[in-house]
Amino acid sequence: MKKVNELLGRPLIKIYQDPELFSFSLDSMLLADFAFVGRRTKNVCDLCTGNAPIPLYLSLRFDGKIYGVEVLRKSYDLAIESIKENHLEDRITILNRNLIGVSKELKMKFDLVTVNPPYFKVGDNIINPNDLKAVARHEILATLDDIIKEASALLQPKGRVALVHRPDRLFEIVETMKKYHIEPKRLRFIYPRVGEECNNILIEGVKDGKSELRILPPLYIYEDGNNWTKEVLKIYNFEE
Amino acid sequence: MKKVNELLGRPLIKIYQDPELFSFSLDSMLLADFAFVGRRTKNVCDLCTGNAPIPLYLSLRFDGKIYGVEVLRKSYDLAIESIKENHLEDRITILNRNLIGVSKELKMKFDLVTVNPPYFKVGDNIINPNDLKAVARHEILATLDDIIKEASALLQPKGRVALVHRPDRLFEIVETMKKYHIEPKRLRFIYPRVGEECNNILIEGVKDGKSELRILPPLYIYEDGNNWTKEVLKIYNFEE
Repeated sequence: MKKVNELLGRPLIKIYQDPELFSFSLDSMLLADFAFVGRRTKNVCDLCTGNAPIPLYLSLRFDGKIYGVEVLRKSYDLAIESIKENHLEDRITILNRNLIGVSKELKMKFDLVTVNPPYFKVGDNIINPNDLKAVARHEILATLDDIIKEASALLQPKGRVALVHRPDRLFEIVETMKKYHIEPKRLRFIYPRVGEECNNILIEGVKDGKSELRILPPLYIYEDGNNWTKEVLKIYNFEE
Repeated sequence: MKKVNELLGRPLIKIYQDPELFSFSLDSMLLADFAFVGRRTKNVCDLCTGNAPIPLYLSLRFDGKIYGVEVLRKSYDLAIESIKENHLEDRITILNRNLIGVSKELKMKFDLVTVNPPYFKVGDNIINPNDLKAVARHEILATLDDIIKEASALLQPKGRVALVHRPDRLFEIVETMKKYHIEPKRLRFIYPRVGEECNNILIEGVKDGKSELRILPPLYIYEDGNNWTKEVLKIYNFEE
């Protein structure tokens, strides 16, 4: 069963979801907002794209071409439907395949690679009995190393990769970035509420970049109990 | 010329300072508050102790013995005067020497090592023409590698090292900790004000510890312009 969510405010972007699959999450929106997109950004590749929330969101932030890579056929089908629904066929292309080796198929270099990857190693937690969701949550078909290696191969020199991930994997991400010649440049820590510990991180690195790290102001998700903060509402509704 | 600052609220601790030397900073107070001190903490060693603000502060947090290591004779003399003034001679011992190799002299293992080290590499900035201050600010007599190596040698297994440093050196600190078998466990980012970027970090690692990282809530220094936040006032006055 599919449902249409109203994803973004201006213009309205619609996104198809399926409860059997991993639904797009706020994390994806925060990443699509965090990733640096400038006047020189001509193209973006989104790995682990799922039903394509990041390509859809990024289509509002710049005018270039966006590629998405998704291994699950059902998620890919939903992504294609959403792209048609929003008349973005000429700007967003989705590839239905494993991300490993996609740089060889695409034969082009990107200014930005975004990834909302599986957060858990295989064995870290009980794997969801629904295999389709497990692939999105656990590193079954691609590990962090595979993902960052492929991202690096997709990037042109000085291109950027932006990820959302869990704080306990921060230093592993940094080590892996360095292994593939990506220098971490911007970090932003996400906290559920004031006074609580960080539960997600946003990290951006530059291929062949110089060592120079900025830690941006914290991002809080909720205030007054379970209401989204003004900043999250602004990101979600794509208000400038 | 020396002046006495009223450092802490309950009981009042007095600290001698000299404008010719590096004055103790808020950073030291934040580190002395951040470092984990529990019921099993029996002794602490503070490297780069300066005029001993961290040993003086920690004397209020637990009942054990505290060692400080300071290479500059003038800072050492001030530390000794403050310790006498506060009648802490039986609890705080200061060694006037370079920290490199101090583990061999002390021949004991510690539960906690604290360090507010020089923040800048030699060559990073113009070195202060006042040599005494330069030694406290620049890695002239000991590098980050020297400091963490010595801290590791001072620690017993599962002992902790806590540092305050600058965010652009975060990953270098983590790499160096891992090199000397210290696993980063707790991170806290310090921001001058809401909406501003991080300008200092607090990091604690455990010798021979397992990989497991927590990122604590952010710490803000100022609010309403240049007033200290309630949290900083509480740390400074040592209110529980």
